[in-house]
Amino acid sequence: MYQNPGPIHICIAGTGNLGTHLVNSVLPDKVKVTHVIGRSLENAKMLAGRFQASFDNTFLNIPKDTRFVILALPDDHISSCCKELADYEGVVVHCSGALPMDALAAAKHFGVMYPLQTFSKVRNLYLKHVPFFVEACNAETLHEMQQLAACYTENIWEVNSQVRKQIHLSAVLSNNFINHLLSYSKNLLDEVDMPFEILHPLLKETIEKAMLLGPENAQTGPALRRDRNTIETHLESLQNKPNMQEYYTLFTKLIQDHGTSNAR
Amino acid sequence: MYQNPGPIHICIAGTGNLGTHLVNSVLPDKVKVTHVIGRSLENAKMLAGRFQASFDNTFLNIPKDTRFVILALPDDHISSCCKELADYEGVVVHCSGALPMDALAAAKHFGVMYPLQTFSKVRNLYLKHVPFFVEACNAETLHEMQQLAACYTENIWEVNSQVRKQIHLSAVLSNNFINHLLSYSKNLLDEVDMPFEILHPLLKETIEKAMLLGPENAQTGPALRRDRNTIETHLESLQNKPNMQEYYTLFTKLIQDHGTSNAR
Repeated sequence: MYQNPGPIHICIAGTGNLGTHLVNSVLPDKVKVTHVIGRSLENAKMLAGRFQASFDNTFLNIPKDTRFVILALPDDHISSCCKELADYEGVVVHCSGALPMDALAAAKHFGVMYPLQTFSKVRNLYLKHVPFFVEACNAETLHEMQQLAACYTENIWEVNSQVRKQIHLSAVLSNNFINHLLSYSKNLLDEVDMPFEILHPLLKETIEKAMLLGPENAQTGPALRRDRNTIETHLESLQNKPNMQEYYTLFTKLIQDHGTSNAR
Repeated sequence: MYQNPGPIHICIAGTGNLGTHLVNSVLPDKVKVTHVIGRSLENAKMLAGRFQASFDNTFLNIPKDTRFVILALPDDHISSCCKELADYEGVVVHCSGALPMDALAAAKHFGVMYPLQTFSKVRNLYLKHVPFFVEACNAETLHEMQQLAACYTENIWEVNSQVRKQIHLSAVLSNNFINHLLSYSKNLLDEVDMPFEILHPLLKETIEKAMLLGPENAQTGPALRRDRNTIETHLESLQNKPNMQEYYTLFTKLIQDHGTSNAR
């Protein structure tokens, strides 16, 4: 069978953090972004620039030879946008961790490609080792999804929507909740005029150690040691911060429960 | 005034994670560990090996020329051990983040040297950039404490017990609580037969981003977006884990509060 040796033509819908990275992180010999769709024509035009792609603020003018339309959009917009693609002959893709694949059921061919990473426009990322989780409506489309993911990464996994949801939950804990703890730590340091930078060596080592030893072997601190004096002195420091006291108490309880049994 | 050009002689009491690093991470041209004290003579002997130091399981035989006795011990043992050093002519030091300096008031000269790092015997650490927080009973001793800390790090801060306690609290959040989140993330992945390694690129980027942009500028995710569908689907996934559901709900609330006002 003749295989087109040229790059895959794709359309990206969405000019946010994810859309931007999906345009900027492709390997240009494998993929050509030929069309960019954004609510703001200005943003779509800017993102289209790298590939001199066409741009639009509707789904009406997708070039015929586009093999994928990737909906890099908020979860609650995906299903309705997909309905506008009911006649599209290529594969409609979403990139969400939490949204089931069947949100795309209005399309003829559809699949999911979920990259397990946090994206910001201001950070350039190297995606080669980032895990991408793919799923598709049938075996043939799955093969296509794998080809698409391979344009970004060497680390491809096939999982269903249920498994992907659980992976996404673990990512929310590992990114959003960790970042919130850091935000809170920074506030505590601000209060005593200390720069956040003093935590950098600890943060690096915390993550290194958890990756190397496994987090279950890296737990330390007053909660695990059941060091009541320190726990009380910490709660005292937090006496004007009821939310944070609740947080501290709950963490202490969870760490202690976790130490004796498994997570519940 | 004649300055002894040789290394400072110190005694380490405690053969746990911290004691081990305080022996193994000193710059040998600056410090000589001449005596190691441990409840277990075996452990004390082992740790003494690097410097061919003497070792003991009591505080009775500290060599006369020892300038510091560092109590690398659990917080609740420090005060009582210090009482055994009432006649000691050098400086008695503790390394705790949470314990006030006056826990050492029984000593003639005393001070605190708190290294902001997580220590495990199995990890070799480079302490040169780790912040060390020092405090002392008077100006002269403070100068000595700074000399001692300079044997480990280039990053020395003088803070009082109150400030140190708050720094320690931020470290508990940044290390213990983060590690617990990672432990929980690993459990979630175990349940769907996914290796913890799939989170590594996300974890690295989470920390990098928080360090570079500041955590207050790096927050993302369903809680901040007030994406109720995803939050509900996550809570559903956790329906057999009431502790974790509570945790998730609280984090969501805190992230949302934090987004609109400041931490409370």
